[in-house]
Amino acid sequence: MTSPPSTASSSASGTLVAIGGAEDKTSDLEILRRVFALAPAGNHEVAVIATASSIPDQVLPEYEAAFSRLGASRVHSLEIQDRQQAADTDTVRLIEQSGVIFFSGGDQLRLTNVLGGSRVLTAIRERLDDGAVVAGTSAGAAAMPGTMIYNGAAADALRKGAVNMTLGLGLVDGLIIDSHFLERGRFTRLMEVGASNPEHLGVGLGEDAGVIIHPHGILEAIGPGHVILIDSRDLASSNIAGLSMGEPVAIEHMILHALVSGHGFDIEARRYLVPDALGSLLAESQ
Amino acid sequence: MTSPPSTASSSASGTLVAIGGAEDKTSDLEILRRVFALAPAGNHEVAVIATASSIPDQVLPEYEAAFSRLGASRVHSLEIQDRQQAADTDTVRLIEQSGVIFFSGGDQLRLTNVLGGSRVLTAIRERLDDGAVVAGTSAGAAAMPGTMIYNGAAADALRKGAVNMTLGLGLVDGLIIDSHFLERGRFTRLMEVGASNPEHLGVGLGEDAGVIIHPHGILEAIGPGHVILIDSRDLASSNIAGLSMGEPVAIEHMILHALVSGHGFDIEARRYLVPDALGSLLAESQ
Repeated sequence: MTSPPSTASSSASGTLVAIGGAEDKTSDLEILRRVFALAPAGNHEVAVIATASSIPDQVLPEYEAAFSRLGASRVHSLEIQDRQQAADTDTVRLIEQSGVIFFSGGDQLRLTNVLGGSRVLTAIRERLDDGAVVAGTSAGAAAMPGTMIYNGAAADALRKGAVNMTLGLGLVDGLIIDSHFLERGRFTRLMEVGASNPEHLGVGLGEDAGVIIHPHGILEAIGPGHVILIDSRDLASSNIAGLSMGEPVAIEHMILHALVSGHGFDIEARRYLVPDALGSLLAESQ
Repeated sequence: MTSPPSTASSSASGTLVAIGGAEDKTSDLEILRRVFALAPAGNHEVAVIATASSIPDQVLPEYEAAFSRLGASRVHSLEIQDRQQAADTDTVRLIEQSGVIFFSGGDQLRLTNVLGGSRVLTAIRERLDDGAVVAGTSAGAAAMPGTMIYNGAAADALRKGAVNMTLGLGLVDGLIIDSHFLERGRFTRLMEVGASNPEHLGVGLGEDAGVIIHPHGILEAIGPGHVILIDSRDLASSNIAGLSMGEPVAIEHMILHALVSGHGFDIEARRYLVPDALGSLLAESQ
């Protein structure tokens, strides 16, 4: 085992895509098509990692069919269900030769528990630095940042301690990502997180929606659903530090945005980008 | 039937209390106790109106027991299930002599359909002008403004036309009120409404939480739950006007607050009030 690599990669040349779950896998494939199109030129191999899933036998063939339809030269279906498999040399080699690496949904705590500090995760980080696209849906999206949410009932999440968080995969800085966001009404989860530390941007991904995280911290919403942003950086006040566990959290001033496909956001500048502005910015950074 | 009275009453001397549903009726009665304490001096008669409810026989005895425990001299249990009953002279007389008028939960469309333009509603408005407290829970809170939400699945509410609205009871200006707000994840409903017209403040009442609407438009949160405010006045942009029905709504910049008991908000100034600021403002206005 090598020493742990530095987390995050705002300087990585590859692209991350975080998806809110339940993306279309059989019809127009709108989101998966965008993911596949981001693969580096000439590399059409896809690795699908079903570590988070409790039903990999069901999940992997669905992605294999979808990516094959999109033109993948090979699809590597990787169960990686324990830490031995996460250290396997053959598996690492398949990651190293893939242009698209895709994390399925399931339980993000399985993902981090099995992959954290592993040779497979190191290989994924290196692929991202080298220009591959790394995408994940549901748990596979939530686990991307350095810190992730893994539990917390939305109806009760705005009470001190109600949201459970732990270390994520460290593929991106400055964000907290939640999935199934509109469908499960998870606004309160990102509000509690924002009150506990307002620095990180809350990204709430709806189902069949996602964000491409372009270099230089430019988000681009994709898919038919919504991406909600909760920006706490200008939080004016909160009682959270003074509360006992379980007491209700007061919040003065967070900013809320709803992005749809083609709209974007500049994370560092905290600037909403309508389609024209997003297009100009992405053209400049080519 | 007289001509319709002017809607709203920011100049009324009485007080409105809007409650998010599921308020405690058997234990500490925290919210109902506050409601009862707002009754004008020397008048401890309570009228409970179960028009919204499909099970008035079950609902009315619960409130009768609760208000009796709090010291009500009489509790008038009023079913008012049709427009004939809403014009009944004896019922109007009971409203006229009550210091507390309380709307149960149920279906807000039943409430407006039965009470809209009725003698009972006119009497309620007059009592509010004369200093009585008018409170409502769930549907009884949602129906208070001049315009109300009566339907719209939260998971899908941020699509053009997904929120159904119609005329409310016209007891308060400048607000849109939603109930069971955190429990049913209804943020998207107030976001769609705010995009369609950013002028009115969105008030999302959690269960066992409420707001006292004091004179001069000062809100005070009460109860163990949360009150969420979605302030769209400084909305920067939205695509809503150009969309077809059912298409996803983009929103740039709404402001989000979470109030807990003792915290408040100045509607006109759009100013969050921590407990000290709320106390000073309420003392000044005495």
